[in-house]
Amino acid sequence: MLTVLSGGVGAARLLRGLCLVDDPATITAVVNVGDDIVLHGLRISPDLDTVTYTLAGLDNDVTGWGLVDESWRVMEELGILGGPVWFALGDRDLATHLYRTGRLDEGGSLSDVALELRRARRIDVNILPVTDQRLSTILMTPSGERLGFQEYFVARRHAVEVASISFDGADACRPAPGVLDAIDTADRVVIAPSNPLVSIDPILAVPGVREHVVARRADVVAVSPIVGGVALKGPADRLLRETGHEVSALGVARHYKDLAATIVIDLADESLRDAIEEIGMRCIITDTVMRDAGRAAALATVVRNA
Amino acid sequence: MLTVLSGGVGAARLLRGLCLVDDPATITAVVNVGDDIVLHGLRISPDLDTVTYTLAGLDNDVTGWGLVDESWRVMEELGILGGPVWFALGDRDLATHLYRTGRLDEGGSLSDVALELRRARRIDVNILPVTDQRLSTILMTPSGERLGFQEYFVARRHAVEVASISFDGADACRPAPGVLDAIDTADRVVIAPSNPLVSIDPILAVPGVREHVVARRADVVAVSPIVGGVALKGPADRLLRETGHEVSALGVARHYKDLAATIVIDLADESLRDAIEEIGMRCIITDTVMRDAGRAAALATVVRNA
Repeated sequence: MLTVLSGGVGAARLLRGLCLVDDPATITAVVNVGDDIVLHGLRISPDLDTVTYTLAGLDNDVTGWGLVDESWRVMEELGILGGPVWFALGDRDLATHLYRTGRLDEGGSLSDVALELRRARRIDVNILPVTDQRLSTILMTPSGERLGFQEYFVARRHAVEVASISFDGADACRPAPGVLDAIDTADRVVIAPSNPLVSIDPILAVPGVREHVVARRADVVAVSPIVGGVALKGPADRLLRETGHEVSALGVARHYKDLAATIVIDLADESLRDAIEEIGMRCIITDTVMRDAGRAAALATVVRNA
Repeated sequence: MLTVLSGGVGAARLLRGLCLVDDPATITAVVNVGDDIVLHGLRISPDLDTVTYTLAGLDNDVTGWGLVDESWRVMEELGILGGPVWFALGDRDLATHLYRTGRLDEGGSLSDVALELRRARRIDVNILPVTDQRLSTILMTPSGERLGFQEYFVARRHAVEVASISFDGADACRPAPGVLDAIDTADRVVIAPSNPLVSIDPILAVPGVREHVVARRADVVAVSPIVGGVALKGPADRLLRETGHEVSALGVARHYKDLAATIVIDLADESLRDAIEEIGMRCIITDTVMRDAGRAAALATVVRNA
């Protein structure tokens, strides 16, 4: 049994790799919801959807986001109407948001929807939102402007300085059904190579989650998303720097040292091994760049055996 | 200045005809919202959209509903997910609902949205929802089942007996800005050939509207939607019968006699002239079947000169 704390693309790729080397039905993904947004009245959960689409084999390899065989008729027409089109929602993708919003309106929970959607996509991995309540990752600029995650990430293309990050509503959240149990009973808890500050931290901000992960520290394995001092994808490097962290696998290790006994870092960062071991973490060095399914499976093998 | 109390398709065709014989900017449509529905979290206003699409020349002549050049990718995918697809929403059409829902979420009113959408479609006719509040047409079956309009009309294909009709929330509604003024100041108020019971009555159920129409009775012209004892479209004939009305242009005249001094009926119903005049209405007989734009324009000419 493996439980993976998951953001979007990086986590989804690792999960796909794990499915190649383990029975998918023994894997649980506990997924960030801090990036969730309401747009056009629709409830959008980007990380849950990225994980679901990727595990269904429907992810778009060319764009690196969204669905394969996607079309854009709704957005084209919305543009004609003068509506907001800064957050691109494909036609196939919209069906997910319509489904989710309708079910939430009926009184279903985000976990119910995640279960129904993964079953519709014939996915055996247990995909759980970390919480069924609303939690919003907020990025504060030095001038005091508060940006929602998608406003920061998509509308501003993360080209804005961030002074601090908070998780609105986290204190009032409860872990979704099955989340704490998945952490408590897994043979190994994996922190995916997702953005530590805006993908993993919001998961840990849900009351109880951090404590339960800490209690499993000996069996927790983190995978560094920073390779050779840069983020493979997204603004993790910039955010780490702006919020006072060292932008390296060592910086990531320091961020996770109370949570994980082991960190997996890239071959490019071999020189950081001693420094990481000095802060009390076991350090495993391997190729962490999941260029293709084969390399994702190889990394997954290292992680599951760590 | 003309003000037209409007349901969906029949009203839209008459409005299109009126635009051919009058300056569109002098025409106001006061549109039914009792058919409105929330689906997938989206706010859908079928009559407002039918009027808007038709006046924009985007209506689908083949299906008789929806948009031209429509596609169904979102619905196809929603079907794969096991979501509700009984109410078909095309991809282009969905853009309207996303736009509306987003603007209402931001605090815009239904009238604001109607104005923005008709401007985006370059329509000069003033399209007003009768109210900015929620009003729901409910059909009660003899066994006491309460059906929303779309549930009755689309899901059950109006193949269910109706004992009575009510307009939930009507008492708490206020006429939308401009509605009463459009009725008060028009040279002529037209009751479109829409379903009297489920398209026109909900308009009249908004407090104040019926009284203002009654006050203009001398200048009100109704067009009968019943021709030769049957409805040209939809369940108007069946509903009239089930709720105790005579299913004929005379039955329609009786329904409107306190509101309209004049009724326009079809050539097929010439024999009803005396009976209609006996109840105190002026009766104009012409071809009311708007098979094409030319005939719609001819009917419009009769109506505007009535």
